[in-house]
Amino acid sequence: MAIERNEIIYDGPGGPFEGLAVRDTDWDDPRPGVMLVPNVLGPKEMDFANAERLAELGYAAFVADVYGQGNRATRADDDPARFMNALNADREMLRDRLLASLATLKTLDGIDPAKTAATGYCFGGKCVLDLARCGADISGVVSFHGVYDPPPFPNVTVMTAKILVCHGWGDPLAPPEVTVALAQELTAGGADWQIHAYGHTGHGFTDISATMPERGIAHQPDADRRSWRAMQDFLGELFA
Amino acid sequence: MAIERNEIIYDGPGGPFEGLAVRDTDWDDPRPGVMLVPNVLGPKEMDFANAERLAELGYAAFVADVYGQGNRATRADDDPARFMNALNADREMLRDRLLASLATLKTLDGIDPAKTAATGYCFGGKCVLDLARCGADISGVVSFHGVYDPPPFPNVTVMTAKILVCHGWGDPLAPPEVTVALAQELTAGGADWQIHAYGHTGHGFTDISATMPERGIAHQPDADRRSWRAMQDFLGELFA
Repeated sequence: MAIERNEIIYDGPGGPFEGLAVRDTDWDDPRPGVMLVPNVLGPKEMDFANAERLAELGYAAFVADVYGQGNRATRADDDPARFMNALNADREMLRDRLLASLATLKTLDGIDPAKTAATGYCFGGKCVLDLARCGADISGVVSFHGVYDPPPFPNVTVMTAKILVCHGWGDPLAPPEVTVALAQELTAGGADWQIHAYGHTGHGFTDISATMPERGIAHQPDADRRSWRAMQDFLGELFA
Repeated sequence: MAIERNEIIYDGPGGPFEGLAVRDTDWDDPRPGVMLVPNVLGPKEMDFANAERLAELGYAAFVADVYGQGNRATRADDDPARFMNALNADREMLRDRLLASLATLKTLDGIDPAKTAATGYCFGGKCVLDLARCGADISGVVSFHGVYDPPPFPNVTVMTAKILVCHGWGDPLAPPEVTVALAQELTAGGADWQIHAYGHTGHGFTDISATMPERGIAHQPDADRRSWRAMQDFLGELFA
């Protein structure tokens, strides 16, 4: 195994953007490409490490940047959500940046452009759902503790991307009625969808740096492990 | 591989009962035991075949009988639900028969009695949830298109069995509010639980003989395959 990281500068509305391609160069044949969309903070080492785990599974991974080169946040910032909030207020711009990132994924070395998926964490979960909602040419998407409010414009019907939503039942950002509404939305969209709900699990359950249980945001090792396993099953099925 | 079926006559309230033990006798060491609780019709070839699939995975399987020897139904009967309805009206009796079946599982040849789980289909899904609810000494339970109404007496707290619920989102026996209530019940009980919901999927999704889509009861190949995979992941985690 020879995992390699490559910075990718790419274009798009409001760009340039700076993503990271991560793959095992020992693979000779093109691999399915998996785009990873980070949480509220934007690309960071946690995402790069998860991209490496995808590469170890035999996927060519790509950490997408929807904020723009240099636009990164940390929890210590006065307003860690400023880049996210700007895009939440302009879902068309978000969609177009996601589509530019997906187009970039398909051009990367070592990727089979006919076999692509996306995973996303928190805000990134909303992003990958938006890819499915807009009918992006992608085989499947996985949301980990995502955010479920749909954009203020119509979804396509039929959503052709298969969808796996890994959900903490105690997530304060998505109480039961919001999760039920997501199921109804995806059903109306004709999507092939699954929602895996984990008990006693809040927001950010995959994030080992999430330590705010009093706000419902905390790493949960069981849900972390199970959702990663579910993602593997899902990707395995997509690219069988 | 040398899969063997053995009829097991056992005792319990309202017995005798007739179950079927299914295991691969090529295994020398004791295997985790998985009890399978059938749907409304009681033990039949579909259950025996699923028990064989469990045996092929390396488990020692046991198809439980909660109706009593000779009490079997078919879809062609005037009242296929008569045995089920009698037990639905007496959840204490149902519980006691389940506990007798579980105790029998632990005595079977080739089983490690410290490692047990149960899977159940439809009414059998209710049964395995009742095992968790009453605090049975069992590592985990899997409900496939189960029925979620709790018994009219209190559950234990903490439910120690881990729980996987594989659920068709369009199941007319369990609309969203019933599924949400189950999540709340299991949360209140302190159970380690997961609910996997599948879109465009009704009741009976694992049952290739289920052909009543107009009543929301139909085989769904994707949910069938995915739930079997999820069960494998779950059992693998239980007995790792």
